[in-house]
Amino acid sequence: SGTSWGQGAISTAKWGGVKLSEVLKLAGLDDPIHAQETGGMEHIRFYSIDGMKASICIEKGLSPYGDCIVAYEMNGEPLPRDHGFPLRVIVPGYAAVRNVKWLSKIELSGTEADGAWQRGLNYKTLPPSVTDAKTVNLAEMPSMTEVSLFSGITQTEIVSSSSSPSNDDDDANATTTTAIDAKPGDVVRVKASGWAWAGGGRNVVRVDLTGDNGASWTTATLTEGKDQRFGRAWAWVFWECDDIAATVQPDGKVRLASKAVDMAFNVQPESSDHTWNVRGLGNNSWYRTEVTPPQTT
Amino acid sequence: SGTSWGQGAISTAKWGGVKLSEVLKLAGLDDPIHAQETGGMEHIRFYSIDGMKASICIEKGLSPYGDCIVAYEMNGEPLPRDHGFPLRVIVPGYAAVRNVKWLSKIELSGTEADGAWQRGLNYKTLPPSVTDAKTVNLAEMPSMTEVSLFSGITQTEIVSSSSSPSNDDDDANATTTTAIDAKPGDVVRVKASGWAWAGGGRNVVRVDLTGDNGASWTTATLTEGKDQRFGRAWAWVFWECDDIAATVQPDGKVRLASKAVDMAFNVQPESSDHTWNVRGLGNNSWYRTEVTPPQTT
Repeated sequence: SGTSWGQGAISTAKWGGVKLSEVLKLAGLDDPIHAQETGGMEHIRFYSIDGMKASICIEKGLSPYGDCIVAYEMNGEPLPRDHGFPLRVIVPGYAAVRNVKWLSKIELSGTEADGAWQRGLNYKTLPPSVTDAKTVNLAEMPSMTEVSLFSGITQTEIVSSSSSPSNDDDDANATTTTAIDAKPGDVVRVKASGWAWAGGGRNVVRVDLTGDNGASWTTATLTEGKDQRFGRAWAWVFWECDDIAATVQPDGKVRLASKAVDMAFNVQPESSDHTWNVRGLGNNSWYRTEVTPPQTT
Repeated sequence: SGTSWGQGAISTAKWGGVKLSEVLKLAGLDDPIHAQETGGMEHIRFYSIDGMKASICIEKGLSPYGDCIVAYEMNGEPLPRDHGFPLRVIVPGYAAVRNVKWLSKIELSGTEADGAWQRGLNYKTLPPSVTDAKTVNLAEMPSMTEVSLFSGITQTEIVSSSSSPSNDDDDANATTTTAIDAKPGDVVRVKASGWAWAGGGRNVVRVDLTGDNGASWTTATLTEGKDQRFGRAWAWVFWECDDIAATVQPDGKVRLASKAVDMAFNVQPESSDHTWNVRGLGNNSWYRTEVTPPQTT
């Protein structure tokens, strides 16, 4: 169940608000590390007026470089009702389910929030050794916090065809912007662009594209968003790649895949076999898309 | 060139010293975020009396949860000479090359350190689109900071044999602690233990083991080190796995592989194809080891 968003599950906006650390300081939390180490105050819990609740670890909430805020503005306007008016939490780099809307209460606690959004099966990532979700010991499965890196392809265009992958420069440069005759087995050149993002504020340092299911890769050029501060890359990075060699498949289509690499050199995995979820949340396997070359008639 | 350390390239110790943030505060850095945003002071450079130099981003050095120190003790004793006496930097969760020994100077700068250890090819991670390292534009390749997650296998023991993988419980329970007759194609049960670690302080939430090259996985039990604070898991996590099904290969050996998963659900990759280095640094592909079943004679 649930909505199959695809790339639509993620967005970015300009949020305005007050630092969560300042709110807690005004409420009397003068020394977070002391409160944590001596009082066991390890989690910050958020409650919504609609009953939703979630929590984050105090380290994320209070680091000066964690950038958590209690937001009252979105893109320069008061928060729209659907986005949590009058107040919501923004926890950048985290799974969206921690950005509690219509905020009614904040509290420090020794344990994470109760409730399905924090501890339930729908928000747990499962190992391949579990094949029946009913057998999961939920208490042993960590809750979602930072998300893993991902990339997506938003635009594609076939810019040229070449009758043979091993052909010389003459053919490779035979750019056609109109319909092309591409037969199965031919290699065509594709232009693509898209976005990438990594959880935890990790900067995306590279996006690679393949048109032959991973046999060869072309590295994209990172554009807007590539200069975000170290470890505070909360927004998308955009990329462009002008010359991906793609093999026309037996069904006449071309298939592209993208993968991103973050600053810790974690790699977007080929499949979701190692980290699965009953609803498909957190699936960050290679983004795959297909293109049908326009045919001359 | 270089030493082929294998698992020996990593160790852990108890370090004693003073917080790097306190040292910089005493030197006059009262407001790091102001110094960064208005003065462009984005990197902390370290110099060694032997000429080595390296730098880290100010966010890592000054976060209260970053735990960087100027160390003068190792395991409760003054630093040994080989470990940097009298002072060295400890940057937990980072590539070891940032832990500058025999410290002579610390400075803030708008740019990262000069020199081969920071900017040279030996410490750059390369994409699959680069097949000749001589063509690399070093300025476009990010320097090493946080490392990606890794796991290793340190102990293995074949605890039982079963003549067929699809056999019933009678055979699967036929534990033998002495020599066994295992023929190619047989499935044996293996006990293994080891360690895992992720860069950036990311907690390791899972280690999986396979004895059939990834066709099936058994999840290990995490032991010492699993309760490190959120995002501050600077030390190893140990794991044990008692019942890995492993297929005896045509050469009579059994092959195991381990992979770890971190709190952001990044996965230790199967191969190093996506992130390579001229010296093999940063290769965190599945840890593989082989075991020869003891044969009855």
